[in-house]
Amino acid sequence: MNRPFNFNAGPATLPPSVLQRAAADMLNWQGSGMGVMEMSHRAPHFLSIYEKAQADLRELLALPPEFKILFLQGGGKGHNAFIPMNLARADQAADFVLTGTWSEQSSKEAAKYCQSHVAAKADPYTSIPAAASWQLQKGAAYTHICANETVHGVEFAELPDMRALGSDAPLVVDFSSNVLSRPMDWSRVGLAFGGAQKNIGAAGVTIALVREDLLGHAQAICPGVFDFALQAKNDSMYNTPPTYSIYIAGLVFEWLKAQGGVAAIEQQNIAKADLLYGAIDGSRLYENRVQKDCRSRMNVPFFLRDEGLNAAFLEAAKNEGLLGLKGHKMVGGMRASIYNAMPLAGVQKLVGFMQAFEAQHYKG
Amino acid sequence: MNRPFNFNAGPATLPPSVLQRAAADMLNWQGSGMGVMEMSHRAPHFLSIYEKAQADLRELLALPPEFKILFLQGGGKGHNAFIPMNLARADQAADFVLTGTWSEQSSKEAAKYCQSHVAAKADPYTSIPAAASWQLQKGAAYTHICANETVHGVEFAELPDMRALGSDAPLVVDFSSNVLSRPMDWSRVGLAFGGAQKNIGAAGVTIALVREDLLGHAQAICPGVFDFALQAKNDSMYNTPPTYSIYIAGLVFEWLKAQGGVAAIEQQNIAKADLLYGAIDGSRLYENRVQKDCRSRMNVPFFLRDEGLNAAFLEAAKNEGLLGLKGHKMVGGMRASIYNAMPLAGVQKLVGFMQAFEAQHYKG
Repeated sequence: MNRPFNFNAGPATLPPSVLQRAAADMLNWQGSGMGVMEMSHRAPHFLSIYEKAQADLRELLALPPEFKILFLQGGGKGHNAFIPMNLARADQAADFVLTGTWSEQSSKEAAKYCQSHVAAKADPYTSIPAAASWQLQKGAAYTHICANETVHGVEFAELPDMRALGSDAPLVVDFSSNVLSRPMDWSRVGLAFGGAQKNIGAAGVTIALVREDLLGHAQAICPGVFDFALQAKNDSMYNTPPTYSIYIAGLVFEWLKAQGGVAAIEQQNIAKADLLYGAIDGSRLYENRVQKDCRSRMNVPFFLRDEGLNAAFLEAAKNEGLLGLKGHKMVGGMRASIYNAMPLAGVQKLVGFMQAFEAQHYKG
Repeated sequence: MNRPFNFNAGPATLPPSVLQRAAADMLNWQGSGMGVMEMSHRAPHFLSIYEKAQADLRELLALPPEFKILFLQGGGKGHNAFIPMNLARADQAADFVLTGTWSEQSSKEAAKYCQSHVAAKADPYTSIPAAASWQLQKGAAYTHICANETVHGVEFAELPDMRALGSDAPLVVDFSSNVLSRPMDWSRVGLAFGGAQKNIGAAGVTIALVREDLLGHAQAICPGVFDFALQAKNDSMYNTPPTYSIYIAGLVFEWLKAQGGVAAIEQQNIAKADLLYGAIDGSRLYENRVQKDCRSRMNVPFFLRDEGLNAAFLEAAKNEGLLGLKGHKMVGGMRASIYNAMPLAGVQKLVGFMQAFEAQHYKG
């Protein structure tokens, strides 16, 4: 099958084998006589899907047993509210490190529920302020970072060590757009969360990994369905979970294990990112403005030095089967999202196209 | 294809033609080169799916233009929190009419956000208190009813007319388990809401239909993603919506239109319910305990007078391809959920089985 390559930032491309399996299971999952969408979430068929997805995710992430896995709703943006509701008191500080539009939104939403404090802010969003310079509040409920900024293409090369910075606050990591793309050091993390629609699967399920000692402190105004302790106690089934999105996530986890797991996919991701950034840096037409030590491996924003060529670039790319390359309206230009499910062949084809386009259209 | 009949209460059976279409579209929706799960929610392909789903739902429900259609997350249970957050002040009353476990839960969750008041309560949950007896609070933000109680099998035959009861409060209707199964009188409604996993499609999307004048009063603590005014302004795309669940809902709306719409499916639903209740009432083994004027057309709980036969009944039913008949743990016994997508043939087969089981096993 000759599928186009889809560089959407999310919802995003999925492995064809995952989609083929989902199509084959649609009316009759493993001889059960029903499709996954039709299954009671409390009956054995779905519970087996659910438990396997949990176990595979734990294995892929090397997630320690003291972390609970929650499958929730509301997206990353919803969790910007649910996290302070669960971890902070209204009079308590929470620190935010702003490295792009996602962490900025997180800090703003948190201000409804606690004393939201900007500990550091990159200006513009093309770098990450050195951790030693962060203005951390004493007694803060948590420190929030966005591990990978989907819009601005800025990624933490490693997670900050809060203890080394003299802080007792748990680190909250928004990993919506780089979960499972690289290993994580869980000894540095209190809570990690992200929507599924980038590296995990279908929009509609949000995964929260919460260290047990952080459970049980929800504010009285926290909705029951987003009370992490209540959901942990009910194995994420305090309400009906988004069953089909969990099933798709489970298929992606199986696919990822078959690729060799996170360590293997990280090598692929490095190869893809190196190839694309190399092509951009080596060209006269294209440029990426993010500082090299924090360039995202997942979302590569780039600009044409002659912006008058933007429309022609997108049109020609589409004709070559290269979709979803238009940049976010907040930033402009182009963006190639190259999540786990984007094969190296897709990036090779993109780079070849970019070089041909430059040769044909750019007079310098 | 010889599929079993699935009487699950939700997630529930879907029309095979809907699932076949979803399977066929899985890798390549209408020549787009991508599956629906892989589409950007802001790009033309998905927007066309989204707009058609909205328009078909409005047509099917005969929904007046002053109602906004929101596709949200969080389920019915989440909306038990989001609705008081959006409609009530913290010091304001909201009235609840308790006719089963769902309305009871709604009243409890609302107490976090406003002065939740029980205006009437059936005891036990087998009838609906006469509207003239409801103790409505002056100046209440709204009056909440659950149009159909999935667990207890109690359904309002018609919506109450709040003005006739001397109340100015808008009526809030939880229609999770009977939406699209019968017409609704929108002149009596302020807001209606429900999860999709019973009569609409896949778990993970919750539909809220909100009269415009009720928008814009959210409490300061309302999460942005559940601020109905903000979502209405952003056409439910303030955050990434659950795109695939919306697509499935759209396919179900198309299917329902092909069946002749809500008026036609209501006739089917009446025929199915009459057949099943008639068989129960005419038997010596089975009984339904709900008052006849408020028996649900969607969820039919019933008991075997000899409870020692329960396990044998479920096992024999399963062997006949009749699945999901175990009652909710809160009530016990059996329950047959016969939503729109359950064909008359499924109820006929169930009734035939019940009669044969009674003849074989019940000595009276």
